[in-house]
Amino acid sequence: MTPPVQVSFYGGLGEIGRNMAAVEVDGRIALIDVGLAFPDAEHHGIDLILPDWAQLRDRRKDLHCVVVTHGHEDHMGALPFFLREFPGVPIYATRLTLGLLRAKFEEYPDIEADLREVEAGERVETGPFDIEFVGVTHSIPDGLAVAFHTPHGTILHSGDFKLDQTPIDAKPTDLPHLAQLGDAGVALLLADSTNADQPGITRTERVIGRTLREVFAAATGRIVCTTFASHVHRVQQVLDAALEAERMVCFVGRSMIRNMPIARDLGYLRYDDSLIVDLAEVERLPRDRTLIVCTGSQGEPYAALSLMAAGEHRQVSLRPGDTVVMASSVIPGNENAIYRSINGLFRQGAKVVHKGIADVHVSGHAAADELRIFHNMVRASSFVPVHGEYRHLVAHAQIAIETGTPTEQVFVCEDGDTILLENGVAKRGESFKPGLVFVDGLGVGDVGNAVLRDRGKLSAEGICIAVVTVDQHSRSQGVPTIVQHGVLHEPSQADLIDQATKVLTEDLHSAGDGDHAVVRRTCVQTLGRFWRETTGRRPVILPVVIEV
Amino acid sequence: MTPPVQVSFYGGLGEIGRNMAAVEVDGRIALIDVGLAFPDAEHHGIDLILPDWAQLRDRRKDLHCVVVTHGHEDHMGALPFFLREFPGVPIYATRLTLGLLRAKFEEYPDIEADLREVEAGERVETGPFDIEFVGVTHSIPDGLAVAFHTPHGTILHSGDFKLDQTPIDAKPTDLPHLAQLGDAGVALLLADSTNADQPGITRTERVIGRTLREVFAAATGRIVCTTFASHVHRVQQVLDAALEAERMVCFVGRSMIRNMPIARDLGYLRYDDSLIVDLAEVERLPRDRTLIVCTGSQGEPYAALSLMAAGEHRQVSLRPGDTVVMASSVIPGNENAIYRSINGLFRQGAKVVHKGIADVHVSGHAAADELRIFHNMVRASSFVPVHGEYRHLVAHAQIAIETGTPTEQVFVCEDGDTILLENGVAKRGESFKPGLVFVDGLGVGDVGNAVLRDRGKLSAEGICIAVVTVDQHSRSQGVPTIVQHGVLHEPSQADLIDQATKVLTEDLHSAGDGDHAVVRRTCVQTLGRFWRETTGRRPVILPVVIEV
Repeated sequence: MTPPVQVSFYGGLGEIGRNMAAVEVDGRIALIDVGLAFPDAEHHGIDLILPDWAQLRDRRKDLHCVVVTHGHEDHMGALPFFLREFPGVPIYATRLTLGLLRAKFEEYPDIEADLREVEAGERVETGPFDIEFVGVTHSIPDGLAVAFHTPHGTILHSGDFKLDQTPIDAKPTDLPHLAQLGDAGVALLLADSTNADQPGITRTERVIGRTLREVFAAATGRIVCTTFASHVHRVQQVLDAALEAERMVCFVGRSMIRNMPIARDLGYLRYDDSLIVDLAEVERLPRDRTLIVCTGSQGEPYAALSLMAAGEHRQVSLRPGDTVVMASSVIPGNENAIYRSINGLFRQGAKVVHKGIADVHVSGHAAADELRIFHNMVRASSFVPVHGEYRHLVAHAQIAIETGTPTEQVFVCEDGDTILLENGVAKRGESFKPGLVFVDGLGVGDVGNAVLRDRGKLSAEGICIAVVTVDQHSRSQGVPTIVQHGVLHEPSQADLIDQATKVLTEDLHSAGDGDHAVVRRTCVQTLGRFWRETTGRRPVILPVVIEV
Repeated sequence: MTPPVQVSFYGGLGEIGRNMAAVEVDGRIALIDVGLAFPDAEHHGIDLILPDWAQLRDRRKDLHCVVVTHGHEDHMGALPFFLREFPGVPIYATRLTLGLLRAKFEEYPDIEADLREVEAGERVETGPFDIEFVGVTHSIPDGLAVAFHTPHGTILHSGDFKLDQTPIDAKPTDLPHLAQLGDAGVALLLADSTNADQPGITRTERVIGRTLREVFAAATGRIVCTTFASHVHRVQQVLDAALEAERMVCFVGRSMIRNMPIARDLGYLRYDDSLIVDLAEVERLPRDRTLIVCTGSQGEPYAALSLMAAGEHRQVSLRPGDTVVMASSVIPGNENAIYRSINGLFRQGAKVVHKGIADVHVSGHAAADELRIFHNMVRASSFVPVHGEYRHLVAHAQIAIETGTPTEQVFVCEDGDTILLENGVAKRGESFKPGLVFVDGLGVGDVGNAVLRDRGKLSAEGICIAVVTVDQHSRSQGVPTIVQHGVLHEPSQADLIDQATKVLTEDLHSAGDGDHAVVRRTCVQTLGRFWRETTGRRPVILPVVIEV
């Protein structure tokens, strides 16, 4: 008579991709991933977006462990914040994932972490949980799918994966292991939907190596190559091609410099020390004998490549004849920043090779035909598409139905939805309403949508402040002081401020006695009308009433 | 001994694509296009971006005419603002372009326009200008390339074009005419670079018709189809496919409702009135007998499709089983808005067919292999790539060189550059420094980068105002009033304001006597530090000193 197993989706089902799910067995909770998302322009000034784990606060004692599927920020990036609230919860992950997590925790010296290494193929029993780890290929090594064997059936979470049959580490997603799980019976499958609306299969990572060798062989000046600092296999291919092209390699950019030695020390990256030079040396070597591997593939304003594109990198300059290879994807929302980088690189005279014109990137996620294979291996009796925007989840649901999952056992969920699994049958549970938890400066969760709306309005229209001094009867005294910021270019428009002051003085005078609220309302109405009529703008009007 | 002909680039060479160029012959100036650009998120609250024609103000009497190549906003959208400054300058354009321009001018009743209709193949002599118009195919009918026969050689501007050999109006870009011009000799070519880095050719518009017929035949519920309201041929194909699918058509969205009758009245669009229903009727007809053609392909917040996606359109709702066809491109910068629309449409239960998964869009611009054909027709002796970001201009320059233009006669220019043509030889002239002219509300050009920087800072960090009353010796009186907007969520953080007030009171007290500047500096320093230390944020600090 064990209660149903509950799966709760805290994030990753929708446009804000910070991944986190919970599996609750017998009153104990295991989390799968605790990731963060990076803000868009509409998240004015916000630094990070975390999952909203508010409802776990009442379940503190029931939190049993966290399983991290792989070392990307959207899967493990929120852990420092999580551990501040829930110190000591054990974290299970593979060796590389833990290596990157340790490096991250160095920036948060207050964090206590209980890190437990597991490896693909292993099975761990802890509390009511019986967890089996399956190796998967992704755009970072050492990724996992995770199976929870529960009293009500096996739940399999795919992690982020693709079916590259010739990955760089020769460890393709463990289809035989998935087939075994399928033979034994998977009651509920949760699987990566990122590329569910892309037909065909994602090509092997090895195609990039071929392109790199060709491009490097043809290059006559310096080569700069950018990719994600966690894409160890991509960097491996760059290093191998650099060796073949007899070029020395220099890592540039904080995360590149931090991650590559970790990956090498842990055995995920192979290169000879003689291949590597530091930045000071690079400038002394012939341009056609050097290659720089750097961050900045997304046009991030202060990343190495962006600075080079703007001609503002202190140590590295580009010249006509140099080649820049952007061995990276375009993350939606970053298009304009990336194009600005590319335009800047061309202005420096560089030749730019990017995925729009050459095979220098493949995705880390399975496309539709790979998903079909995956579903036919696992043969789950119920399915929830995860890791994607709604359009991807719908496309993936369709694939599950095509490959035999009964339509009524396929659930398109959103953040905050739950699924109950009982005797191998899934059904929807009660939903909760998770919000977006913003990190802004030192604050976690103290800036919400109201503040963002304020900032949005300030951003579009500016602000006008009216300081009105009143006597104890709220009668306006003297002349109000009007100050604006972001409404207009003050030096050239000082007369508008004078006019506004005149109009407001008159209106305050005719408003007569009242209270502070009347004074405030007069300011808002008069100045709102004034700016609308004179400039067509609608700044925030902020009255400050001072009683003297 | 006529002076060299000067070509000046006012816009369209770079990331802000409002197109405008000037050809000066014998002291008289003809403009090619006067377009506008739409702002990005980084242009906080700006409505439109115009070319900076400041230096034409001194040349008012020399302004001879404007030639508009086609009816897109980035080529003619700034004309109302231009004509306010330069009333009565004659505008030459084709019938459809003028039809759309007249409709636009209805929104600007103060505008006086001297509109002069020309047609492809025509040649017009006016003042020192001898202008020949060549028909080109684009994503709007009735587009033109423009040749200026000058004493120093012929200058050909391609307009926006592609080489679709089976366009919907059976009027492909007039290659024989271009060949004739080439035979006679083109001294300087300016040509569309938008797709210069895309290999191959842009497929014919007709492929869309095939897809539409298939999708419409398979649809069981309502069909909603969105595209650009100026893409007359795309709409023609939607109407034809709707007729074949026996569906009544309803136009939704202001510009769609405005433009389609214009296009039909002028003979560019054919449909029978019996095919069209209005919005009130649509809801009374069976869902599988209706089709809505609407605006909103770019995810614009208040456009018809966006409202439907959010379930907020007053008259049109979507249901499971409906089909939405997005027969449109993704303009860079709009990706997230468009994906949000698509996700919303899926949430309403609709099937969404977009260019990512079906042939429902082709570009209006020539790809690299078409450009090669174009260059080989024209055989110009010098070349400036226009209409593109820097990366496109560089790619197009390469194509010109490949097809035989001498390298030293290929000029990659940017906004503000000029080219001098003398005796058939081109060279760089002096550059000017055009800015970006922003339209914000009623203001044209009064908001500049300084105001945008202010808004950007407000947007990211919010603002904190300190009102300090001082006596005549600038000694702070009483307690300052501190108000914030966009820094934090005030109700939950009122104690922070109290703390800030306390700290500032003390610091003002210890600052002692001085002048207003000292008081202001104390506010900025104390509050800056306070917010940084307590919240990690750096709001704009705005001190207001009131002498009582």
